[in-house]
Amino acid sequence: MSAARIDTAVIIAVGSELLTPHRVDTNSLFLTGRLNELAIEVHRKVVVGDDRDRLAQELDRGLADADLVVLIGGLGPTDDDLTRDALAAAVGAPLVERREIVESIRERFAARRLAMPEINRRQALVPRGAEILANPRGTAPGLWLAWQDRVVVALPGPPRELEPMVDGLVRARLAARVAGHRLARRIVVVGGRAESYVEERVQPVYARWRERTPVVAATILAGPGQIELHLSTRAPEPPEAEAALDLAVADVEAALGRDVYSTAGESLEQVVGERLRQREWRLAVAESCTGGLVASRLTDVPGSSAFLDLAVVAYANTAKTDQLGVAPALLETHGAVSEPVALAMASGVAARATAQVGLGVTGIAGPSGGTEAKPVGTVCIAVTGQAGERARTFAFRGERTFVKRQASQAALDMLRRMLDDRG
Amino acid sequence: MSAARIDTAVIIAVGSELLTPHRVDTNSLFLTGRLNELAIEVHRKVVVGDDRDRLAQELDRGLADADLVVLIGGLGPTDDDLTRDALAAAVGAPLVERREIVESIRERFAARRLAMPEINRRQALVPRGAEILANPRGTAPGLWLAWQDRVVVALPGPPRELEPMVDGLVRARLAARVAGHRLARRIVVVGGRAESYVEERVQPVYARWRERTPVVAATILAGPGQIELHLSTRAPEPPEAEAALDLAVADVEAALGRDVYSTAGESLEQVVGERLRQREWRLAVAESCTGGLVASRLTDVPGSSAFLDLAVVAYANTAKTDQLGVAPALLETHGAVSEPVALAMASGVAARATAQVGLGVTGIAGPSGGTEAKPVGTVCIAVTGQAGERARTFAFRGERTFVKRQASQAALDMLRRMLDDRG
Repeated sequence: MSAARIDTAVIIAVGSELLTPHRVDTNSLFLTGRLNELAIEVHRKVVVGDDRDRLAQELDRGLADADLVVLIGGLGPTDDDLTRDALAAAVGAPLVERREIVESIRERFAARRLAMPEINRRQALVPRGAEILANPRGTAPGLWLAWQDRVVVALPGPPRELEPMVDGLVRARLAARVAGHRLARRIVVVGGRAESYVEERVQPVYARWRERTPVVAATILAGPGQIELHLSTRAPEPPEAEAALDLAVADVEAALGRDVYSTAGESLEQVVGERLRQREWRLAVAESCTGGLVASRLTDVPGSSAFLDLAVVAYANTAKTDQLGVAPALLETHGAVSEPVALAMASGVAARATAQVGLGVTGIAGPSGGTEAKPVGTVCIAVTGQAGERARTFAFRGERTFVKRQASQAALDMLRRMLDDRG
Repeated sequence: MSAARIDTAVIIAVGSELLTPHRVDTNSLFLTGRLNELAIEVHRKVVVGDDRDRLAQELDRGLADADLVVLIGGLGPTDDDLTRDALAAAVGAPLVERREIVESIRERFAARRLAMPEINRRQALVPRGAEILANPRGTAPGLWLAWQDRVVVALPGPPRELEPMVDGLVRARLAARVAGHRLARRIVVVGGRAESYVEERVQPVYARWRERTPVVAATILAGPGQIELHLSTRAPEPPEAEAALDLAVADVEAALGRDVYSTAGESLEQVVGERLRQREWRLAVAESCTGGLVASRLTDVPGSSAFLDLAVVAYANTAKTDQLGVAPALLETHGAVSEPVALAMASGVAARATAQVGLGVTGIAGPSGGTEAKPVGTVCIAVTGQAGERARTFAFRGERTFVKRQASQAALDMLRRMLDDRG
């Protein structure tokens, strides 16, 4: 057995059911997390059906371009379960029956007062040279096979069998084969800016990172109303990796300033909640086009009762007048979708609730209701509070639920900026 | 361009973020569903990072062993976005800038009163010979490239961009390239029942379907507060397939009665909205633990202003008293999480809004606030209206947002049943 270092992995999930519209391979997420903790990078994930040739081809390819190949599934007792055969063929080792596996399967059945079906003997066939990974929760044992300077690990597909096997057996074995490096990650989230704006600001910063040791890598991801920067680095010791990421995050913050709202993966609603809590301020929300989405996002935060006082969803003009005290003259002069009405909604709901901060959102989510002057996607948002007030008009695009989502994001971002201001 | 028939597909999802522990490729499920409907079989799904060589290798392999290769992602404007380059290299065609794409991106920015950043020009680069698939929801156009007897389709990664492009453009193009049988599907959704209950009722029905021509296949999928039955069948002609599904849906409805709330994919909020509209009734909602989620779901339905009058999110006892007129004595005697309080919230909010139907939801979403008598997940829901009132107490499990989701589902389902009753 070679003791070459393991840096890279390929994950192969086996099973025709994973190629239907209804099943997603979640095992690979769990496994990627565990491998990343050991600084093993996953550079490909593949799903193949229960097909001997395709599986063999995939396995050959994995052995050619990664240090570690993890096979998930296909270890059951039926004809469809081809992982053992494919593995034996790939490494050119014959399958041999291992008596201890037969015994352990027999015992599992005996515990349920059943005789072992003959078909389960197949699960005791193992490529010569493979080590057995015990599976306390099922009949399919896992396999660990060192081949040249590679390692192949085969694990059963059910998450409740696979997960304890990874944590109990595989992790420690892999830890002995990694060279100390650790992978660390950080997610920086930016509010209220387009992807290309963020990219333009951050690109000069990337260049510097490539010249540092350890190198920090970055990926940009766009979501509705926010941009995420995923930063990662490898270093021999965790503190070194974390220090490199701290520096990189500081660079991003310097380049983007207050557009950055989170550097540790918090959601925008969590950040807003935290800021409100710090000031011991309570918020009241008046929503028209977002229809309760802002309130629902804020109440996703545990303990939101500490900072959310009241939320009112008022669509109709009469509701805005009756429930929020918006003056009918204001509605008539400016229209329901206007900054003056958003401001009156914000201060109206805050006054009803004796909250220190008020938020008002009014707009046209579509698909109907748009005009030439105020097309679908026009949304006015206002924040009012002890320290002043502000209002903005946005032009969002997309269908109804996407407009709602973007408007809720913009509203929470305006709140965040206002709470930051009055420092 | 060859018109060879398309039977097999490989899906390649591109993006380093999909190789982290946090992101799962769900696009491939949607796509597999659509391809299966056209009787195109997916025989491999792969995830690769933003790496030019690996992506090129994957693409070569796909072109070697499938009729159709679908690339998802990597069409953005940044350096990380390599799909265009890899595709051009794989088919040996140069990248050329397409003026109509530049113009369309410029217009998108102009609509938001922004200038197009120079970086977005990259999105107008297209391998020579590729056809452009318009993306009405984003700057990244898709690509359709016929190469030898293969087809490569490249689509943007965000599901809200990809899905309408598949349904609007790609499906029809593929349909012209497949032969014979069509797959038809129907989704029947069941509210307020456990998976095992539904399975028991429906299993005898399945057996009959297997003996019919064409055979109808069924899969059960459990979601939060609902069970979906996915029915599918293949027939030479669409009308034959649809007729078989009509029969199967009627069987399910006979077995499950009013538990079935949708047979054509409508959401529960759409069904409730439709019922309210039919009666010309308006609804008012008072939410505590769901925090606006019920209102937000109802306002996802286009035209919801016709049936949603007012929604109030009132967490604190004082808010329940001040805003909804819940008697303090009621709160003291029964506690905030009780059926009498849910009823008082429902009738209180309806009275304020002069709505015909009131809904009240009060509960403990967690993680804190539970007691032995009323643990986290306890939720009381009440519906009141001209035709009477009803209240129920539920015991949900799971973390905060999951409790909210289940409670919103139960609340809408109670509304639906009440609206059905008073027929």
